[in-house]
Amino acid sequence: MVRKIKNDKSLVGTAIIGQSGGPTMVINQSLVGAVLEARKHRQITRFYGAYHGVQGILEREFIDLGAESVRTLEAVAQTPAAALGSVRLKPGEAECKRIFEIMRELDVRYFFYIGGNDSAETAEILHRMAGAERYPLHVFHIPKTIDNDLRVTDHCPGYGSAAKFVAQAFMGDDLDNRSLPGVKINVVMGRHAGFLTAASALGRTGPDGGPHLIYLPERPFSLDQFVKDVKKVHDRLGRCIVAVSEGIEDVYGEPISKRLIGGVDAFGNAQLSGTGALGDFLAKTLTAELGKKLRVRADTLGYMQRSFAGVVSETDAAEARAAGAAAVRLAAGGASSGTVSLIRAKGPKYKIDYVHTALVKVARVTRDMPPAFINRAGNDVTEKFLEYARPLAGKLPSASFLKGDKILGDPKLIG
Amino acid sequence: MVRKIKNDKSLVGTAIIGQSGGPTMVINQSLVGAVLEARKHRQITRFYGAYHGVQGILEREFIDLGAESVRTLEAVAQTPAAALGSVRLKPGEAECKRIFEIMRELDVRYFFYIGGNDSAETAEILHRMAGAERYPLHVFHIPKTIDNDLRVTDHCPGYGSAAKFVAQAFMGDDLDNRSLPGVKINVVMGRHAGFLTAASALGRTGPDGGPHLIYLPERPFSLDQFVKDVKKVHDRLGRCIVAVSEGIEDVYGEPISKRLIGGVDAFGNAQLSGTGALGDFLAKTLTAELGKKLRVRADTLGYMQRSFAGVVSETDAAEARAAGAAAVRLAAGGASSGTVSLIRAKGPKYKIDYVHTALVKVARVTRDMPPAFINRAGNDVTEKFLEYARPLAGKLPSASFLKGDKILGDPKLIG
Repeated sequence: MVRKIKNDKSLVGTAIIGQSGGPTMVINQSLVGAVLEARKHRQITRFYGAYHGVQGILEREFIDLGAESVRTLEAVAQTPAAALGSVRLKPGEAECKRIFEIMRELDVRYFFYIGGNDSAETAEILHRMAGAERYPLHVFHIPKTIDNDLRVTDHCPGYGSAAKFVAQAFMGDDLDNRSLPGVKINVVMGRHAGFLTAASALGRTGPDGGPHLIYLPERPFSLDQFVKDVKKVHDRLGRCIVAVSEGIEDVYGEPISKRLIGGVDAFGNAQLSGTGALGDFLAKTLTAELGKKLRVRADTLGYMQRSFAGVVSETDAAEARAAGAAAVRLAAGGASSGTVSLIRAKGPKYKIDYVHTALVKVARVTRDMPPAFINRAGNDVTEKFLEYARPLAGKLPSASFLKGDKILGDPKLIG
Repeated sequence: MVRKIKNDKSLVGTAIIGQSGGPTMVINQSLVGAVLEARKHRQITRFYGAYHGVQGILEREFIDLGAESVRTLEAVAQTPAAALGSVRLKPGEAECKRIFEIMRELDVRYFFYIGGNDSAETAEILHRMAGAERYPLHVFHIPKTIDNDLRVTDHCPGYGSAAKFVAQAFMGDDLDNRSLPGVKINVVMGRHAGFLTAASALGRTGPDGGPHLIYLPERPFSLDQFVKDVKKVHDRLGRCIVAVSEGIEDVYGEPISKRLIGGVDAFGNAQLSGTGALGDFLAKTLTAELGKKLRVRADTLGYMQRSFAGVVSETDAAEARAAGAAAVRLAAGGASSGTVSLIRAKGPKYKIDYVHTALVKVARVTRDMPPAFINRAGNDVTEKFLEYARPLAGKLPSASFLKGDKILGDPKLIG
């Protein structure tokens, strides 16, 4: 995959790297993977970090990553969120033009951008501009998103750790709900793709373990059906844990939370996170429909899902590191642009290959959960999904129960 | 402290144990500590668990804990939430009478109740009833609460692990907020006592690390002052992380969240948890007062604080275990009632003694944060609090930053 390094002057020069979009637990692993790999390639003469992604290029705010010790870099790699700062700015053509001009002025030969599909689009525009002006700029995107919604790649760095957090949250919440039974709704991040909400199923503690219902943005959400589903589980078990994606939509494709919140973020998307409105709305609906005696609570797992300190999937951390390194290796090897896809090897053993992929294949577009991962009723995931997700989240804590049977009533059994 | 075991027939018989109130990460450690300790005392002939606390006694639902293997018990000890099930029922005199009659019928000699001050009150009533009828019942309360609001004891088992979770949540959130700056509010559990909200300060990643403001139930909350405080921090740092207790009250002692939610729990207390209303209200207030351009988000940390699987303070786990064992040792030694207080030894080294304390000293009443733990402005904790709380939460992940200075603008620095 990596082309042989040619002794080409166009390959010699400065690299810039940036981080973009919502942070993850392992986005710094990709940063450090790239920085350390670059030290093996003499044609990369300097390695600068741009503060807050393309914003840092526009404002010419950099840090010399070449001057950082391995010790510091290794410690930063273990730290959640973006060490360089991140940005929600998605530059248009005009802004990309300015960015490109600044890069040319600074004699930049390499640009690495860690982010999601919007960041891949920025990279793609910059690469196109460089090509049009025959300026030798190597542009690589390094995948990152907790939503796991990039195309081509089997999964995205950042997803596994967020999935692990969500699984552990549901595991604990299920045990809590066994202690004090009732209905508990947890709202999980994920704008269009349900992968992270689906990961709640990894936290199941047994056949009766929650989440008992999982609602994903891939299936239209019906409030009536939701109430019926919850009632059915509660009638059977005396309790019910529900995982709901923040991005659930009605049959018209309108986000349920849109009319509840109304705000939009810097990309013009409806603001879904950082509020408890959706969970509260669903809880109130259940109380209204099923009666006040039912104990209903709702939590919104919130930003902890992407940046809680101390819960990281080892697999995810290693893969994020490797993806960063692979991008640099490809670029230093002469590839002029691309992204790195994580391709899962066929066979029973989990193994990932890091594969050079064209930017256009991941820019702009996203992907949803494949139908095979969702049950027919649209309120749960399939075993196929669990097989897919287990190795990504890695080792989870185990939950154990007392083994004895319940002794009922007769004092003679006890006396 | 432990009296010599007398060869007294009144000491020979069955023990019952129950778990009550909100679960914690380590409440099963206390359970297992009690069960394993009881195996050393031959006068405790049987050891039964009551399902869902006193509810299980009233409904005569038990499990034979004597039949559980050490292996199972050790695994259960590592599992968050109440293995026996918990209950929010605080029995009145009439219900206590029934409970006492069932105990007498079952020839119970020992009753251990793991819980907060309400559970201590239940234990105290039962002990009084037994005394009035000269029935030899040994009643011990084993302390448990994430609120850390029991009297006499230096701190409560359950608090350290919840404090650790809150600290790690704020640590990650602070790093996230450095990446994408704005105002972030996190609502923390704690009805009357601010200890858990205060623990957010343990997550600070450096001099400018959040939380930058901490609002506790111990100080009246003024919305005006809150807006001013946030503006001041944001003007200085360009961002602001706020820790708010769910139990904050206005100058009249009215919970801020009461008018927002309106629900009450089974104890008749205002429902504070399981909704995002308070955080959303504070976020909306900031947006209204400081302008829509300010990025404001609110999360409510929710039930994860008490039962998230996989984040446990080792100190807390060991102490919860020891407290359960101490209660059994005291009761088997002949003490007719009491609770176990964790008393911190004077001196620089952290060391805890488990001290027999009268039930009346912890029943009904609670305690707040001492004034020395709160700063003068009432919007932060003091170094004294941090010294108090650090050993309880135990080891936290570390956050690391790049060391280099920002390079500004001049392309010659980079060329």
